[in-house]
Amino acid sequence: MSVASQTELVFLPLGGSGEIGMNLNLYGFGPAERRKWIIVDLGITFGDELTPGVDVIMPDIRFIAERRRDLLGIVLTHAHEDHIGAVAHLWPQLRCPIYATPFTAALVRAKLEEADVDARVTIVELGGTISLPPFEIELITLTHSIPEPNAVAIRTPLGTILNTGDWKIDPDPLLGETTDEEALRRLGDEGVLAMTCDSTNVFVPGRAGSEADVRTTLSRLIKSYTGRRIAVTAFASNVARLETVALAARDAGRSVALVGRSMRRMVAAARATGYLTAAPDFVPEEQAALIPADDIVYLCTGSQGEFGSALARIATGEHRTAPLDPGDVVIFSSRVIPGNEKRVGALQNALAARGIEIVTDQDHHVHVSGHPCRDELADMYRWVRPAIAIPVHGELRHLMEHRRFAESLQVPHAIVAPNGSVLKLAPGTPCIVDEAPAGRLHLDGTVPVLAGDCVARARRGLSFAGFAALTAVVGPKGRLAAPLSLITEGIPESVVGALREAAEKEAGGARFGDDEESAERLRRAVRRAAQAAWGKRPMVKVEILVLEGRRA
Amino acid sequence: MSVASQTELVFLPLGGSGEIGMNLNLYGFGPAERRKWIIVDLGITFGDELTPGVDVIMPDIRFIAERRRDLLGIVLTHAHEDHIGAVAHLWPQLRCPIYATPFTAALVRAKLEEADVDARVTIVELGGTISLPPFEIELITLTHSIPEPNAVAIRTPLGTILNTGDWKIDPDPLLGETTDEEALRRLGDEGVLAMTCDSTNVFVPGRAGSEADVRTTLSRLIKSYTGRRIAVTAFASNVARLETVALAARDAGRSVALVGRSMRRMVAAARATGYLTAAPDFVPEEQAALIPADDIVYLCTGSQGEFGSALARIATGEHRTAPLDPGDVVIFSSRVIPGNEKRVGALQNALAARGIEIVTDQDHHVHVSGHPCRDELADMYRWVRPAIAIPVHGELRHLMEHRRFAESLQVPHAIVAPNGSVLKLAPGTPCIVDEAPAGRLHLDGTVPVLAGDCVARARRGLSFAGFAALTAVVGPKGRLAAPLSLITEGIPESVVGALREAAEKEAGGARFGDDEESAERLRRAVRRAAQAAWGKRPMVKVEILVLEGRRA
Repeated sequence: MSVASQTELVFLPLGGSGEIGMNLNLYGFGPAERRKWIIVDLGITFGDELTPGVDVIMPDIRFIAERRRDLLGIVLTHAHEDHIGAVAHLWPQLRCPIYATPFTAALVRAKLEEADVDARVTIVELGGTISLPPFEIELITLTHSIPEPNAVAIRTPLGTILNTGDWKIDPDPLLGETTDEEALRRLGDEGVLAMTCDSTNVFVPGRAGSEADVRTTLSRLIKSYTGRRIAVTAFASNVARLETVALAARDAGRSVALVGRSMRRMVAAARATGYLTAAPDFVPEEQAALIPADDIVYLCTGSQGEFGSALARIATGEHRTAPLDPGDVVIFSSRVIPGNEKRVGALQNALAARGIEIVTDQDHHVHVSGHPCRDELADMYRWVRPAIAIPVHGELRHLMEHRRFAESLQVPHAIVAPNGSVLKLAPGTPCIVDEAPAGRLHLDGTVPVLAGDCVARARRGLSFAGFAALTAVVGPKGRLAAPLSLITEGIPESVVGALREAAEKEAGGARFGDDEESAERLRRAVRRAAQAAWGKRPMVKVEILVLEGRRA
Repeated sequence: MSVASQTELVFLPLGGSGEIGMNLNLYGFGPAERRKWIIVDLGITFGDELTPGVDVIMPDIRFIAERRRDLLGIVLTHAHEDHIGAVAHLWPQLRCPIYATPFTAALVRAKLEEADVDARVTIVELGGTISLPPFEIELITLTHSIPEPNAVAIRTPLGTILNTGDWKIDPDPLLGETTDEEALRRLGDEGVLAMTCDSTNVFVPGRAGSEADVRTTLSRLIKSYTGRRIAVTAFASNVARLETVALAARDAGRSVALVGRSMRRMVAAARATGYLTAAPDFVPEEQAALIPADDIVYLCTGSQGEFGSALARIATGEHRTAPLDPGDVVIFSSRVIPGNEKRVGALQNALAARGIEIVTDQDHHVHVSGHPCRDELADMYRWVRPAIAIPVHGELRHLMEHRRFAESLQVPHAIVAPNGSVLKLAPGTPCIVDEAPAGRLHLDGTVPVLAGDCVARARRGLSFAGFAALTAVVGPKGRLAAPLSLITEGIPESVVGALREAAEKEAGGARFGDDEESAERLRRAVRRAAQAAWGKRPMVKVEILVLEGRRA
C-alpha cells in the first residue's frame, strides 16, 4: 500500500491563519487521491495602503475549486464579513450546498441575491446537526459580537474536531443564548482530537467583559446629556449593541434614527429572524432632522473613519438628515481596528474642529471585544481538552503566542499551520505533511486579480515616484519624424523639464533608431535624469512608433 | 492713530498646532508694519500613506521668510526631529542666529555640516539667557525623553510668555536635571501672560511615569534571559534609555553593541557633551557577531518597523553583524507611534515566524512617555498660572480637549490657535486677529514641493486606478499616420485590451483630427471603457503629435 492511499484526517487553512481576516478552513478525510472536503467559513478581508485601489481581498481557492466534486459543503459559523464575505464572489467556482443558522442565512441570502448568484442556503437551527458523511457536524452555540455565533463540532471516523469560530464567554450577552458550556464539556468528555481556535486576543490578559456592562454605561451616559443631540457609532452587526442604544435612548426619552445603509440592512435581517424584539421602532431617517436635539439619538456607521460613511458626513456637517451642532456628542461604541488609527483620528479631529464632544472607550466603558482573552481561552481548553491545539484567526505573532499558551496549559500538541499548510491530524503524530497553493485574490475594481500578478504593487510603485510615458515616432530612415511625446504624472514640474531634455538628447543621437536597444537607452536616460534632478526614479515606459508604409 | 500701528504681542504657529509634528512657533512684538519676530523650534514631520514618495514634510515658512529682516533668531527647545529637523533645510531662507543648549547644538551642527549649510549655532547654557530686544529670553530646564529639554520664557514689555516645548515631570530622569519647579513657580509669581503648552497626552489621566521605573524593569528582564541573545530597540534620542540598557547589560555580564547609524550618531553627540559617562564602552558592531549569545545585547533602531532599519534586517536574519536565532529575545523599549501599527505588526510577525520572543510595553513596564499626562499638566498650570492657555503640539482633538482642561483649571483665557492663526496676546482681550499663510512643504525626493501643488496627491490617484498615456500621430490630412501608442501601468491586462479597442474605435472615427476636442473625446472614450471593464477610471492623458513639415 502506498503512502498516498492511507486514509487521513487533515486540516488545511486557505485564509485566516497568518492574518486577521478572510477565514477559510478546510477539513479533509480520506486517502489523498480521493479525499472528501468541507469548508468552514469563506470570508474576505479589506485592502489597505499596501493594496491601493483594492477594497476587497479573498482567499485564492484554486486548490479546492479544482476538487469541487469532492467538496461536500460550506458551513458558516457567523455573519461577519471575514467569515461570509466571499461566498457570493466565490461560490460559482464551488457550487456546493451552504449551511448556516437563520440570522447568518438571512444575510448571506441577501448578498447572494444582490450578486445574482443562484446558490441555495440550507438553514440549520442553533445546536442543530448536518450530515455530510464522512463528516457528522454539530453546531454549538457560543457568544460573540453578532447574533448566532456557532462553534462547529466535526465528528469523523478518525476523531472529532472543534472549529470554534469567533467567540468569547459573555455571561450576559443580552441577545441570544449564553455559551453552551455543557455541550463543550460533553464534547470534551467524548474526546476531541483537535481544536482550531480564535487567537485574536491571545495577548490580552483576563476576560473580554460582558455586553451587559456596556449597556449599563451607555444608559447612564445617554441620560446624562440634556439639550444636546447624540450620535452613537457602532459596528452594525453588533445587534445587541443596537438594541442597547435603542433601549438606553427610550429610557432617556429619546427616539433613535438609523443612519446609513448597512445599519438598516442589519436591523432588517435581525427583525426578520426574531431579534431586536425588545427595541422600540426606529424613526425613519428622513424625519430625524426634524426632531428636537433633546429627543433624538442617531445610530450610525462609520466608526472606523470610513470615507463617505454616515459619520464622516455628519462630522463635516454635510449629512442632510443627521445634523450635529457645536456641543452635540458623538459616542464611539467601538474599537479602532488596527491600521485605521489615522483615519479615525482624522474623523475625530473633524468633529473636534466643529466643537462636537467625543466619547470613546478610553473615556467610558462603551465597548467590549467579541474575542476571547487569556482566561477565556483557558476555560475553553479546560472544557474541550483537545489533543491538538491549532491556533487560527490571527497574525503570525498571535498564532505563535497562542501555541505557547496552549503548551502552557499542557495540550499535548500545539501546532501553528499557516495558510496553505496541509496538517495531518490522524492517524499517527500530527504534523504538516504537504503544502497547498494559497494566496490572495484582489477584487481590483470589479476584476479579480491574483495578488501575485502585482497590479496593486505596480500602482504602489507609481505612488512613490510617478510615471513617464515616452513615445518616439520614427520615419523611413529610422530617425525621429516628430517631436517626442512625453506624458508624465506625479512628477514635479521642475523635474519634467529635465526628463524631456535628457530624452531629446538621447533620441537626437546618432545611434538612435527603431530598435529595442534604442528604446532601452531612452528609458535609462530618462531615469538617470530623474535621479539627478529629483533623487527618485519614476516608472518609465517607452514605445517607438514606426510610420506605416514608409520603410519599403 | 490707525489700528495697524498699535504695538502688539502676538503668537503665530506655523506648525505643530493641529498636528503632532513640525513644530514652529513665532512670537512677534511691535506694530504690524514693523514687528520683530523670534522663532521657537523649526521641526519636520514624516510623510505617510497620504503623501506617498514624500519622507519629510516641513512648515511652509513664506510668511516669516518674507520678513526675515525682522527675524531676530531661532531658539531650539530640544533635539527631537519635530523641533529641529527643518533647520538645515530652511535656514538658508532665514539666515538668522540659532540658539540651543550644548547637546541640541551638537546635533544641529552635525546636520548643518552634513547639508553643507553655513549657519552659526550659539550655545546657551542650561538655565541661560538670550537677549534679543524687545525679547528677553530665559531657558528653564524641564524633563522629557531626550537630554536638555528647555522651556523658553520670553519676557517682553507687554508681558511674559512661557513656551513649554515638550516636557513631562520625571522625579528621577536618570540623566540631566529634574524639572526646575522653582524657576517655574518664580515665573508664575512674577506673572505669566500666556503659556503655549504640550497637548500630546491630554487624554491620558495620571502621570507619564519615571525613567527610573523603566530602568528597574529592564535590569530585571535582561538578567532573566540566560543563554539567549537579546536585542533592545529604543528611540536613539532617548539617551537615558540607552544608558539604562548599557547599565542593565553590564549588571547581567553582557556587552552592548550599537547597531544602526542613528544610534551611533546619538551616542557620539551625548558623549561629546558630557552625557553617558556612567555607561561602559560599547562593542564595535563588527565584533558583535563573534560574542557568545549569553554575553551580548544589541541596542538598535527600528522600533517603528521602518523599512531597512537595523531591526528590520535583524528580523529577517539578513543582518550581518547582529544575528538572532530562534529563542532569542527582542525587547521593544518604545511605543508605537500612531499610524505605524501595521508596520510594527509586520515586523513582529517576521520575528515571531523565526521563533524569536517579543517583549513590549504590553508585557512589561519597558517604556514611559515623555509627554505630560493630565496630573502633570495640572501641576504646570498651578505653578505658572498663565492668564492665557494656548494648547500646542497636538492634533485638533488634543488642542480642544486641552482647552477644556485649562478652562476646568480656571485659566481665564484658553484659546485654540491652529497653524496660521495670528493670536494677539496683548494689549486688550486676547483673540485671533489675522491669518497668515501656513501650509506644508513636501521634500519630494530632493525637490521641495508645496503640498498645495498636489504632486503627491496625483501619485495617490495613480495608486488607486493606474495611468494610461495615449499618443496619436496625425498626418497631413489630420488622420492617423501610425498605430496608436497606448502605454499603461497599474491596470489589469484584461482591461488594457478594452482600453485599446475603445481608443482605436474613437481615433478611427470620421471626426478625429489633431484638435483639442479630438484629444478630449479620445480621453473620455478610454475612461468610459475602463469604467465598463473594470469599475474604475484611471488617469488618462492624451497627446496628439502632428508630423512635421507635412501640413503646408
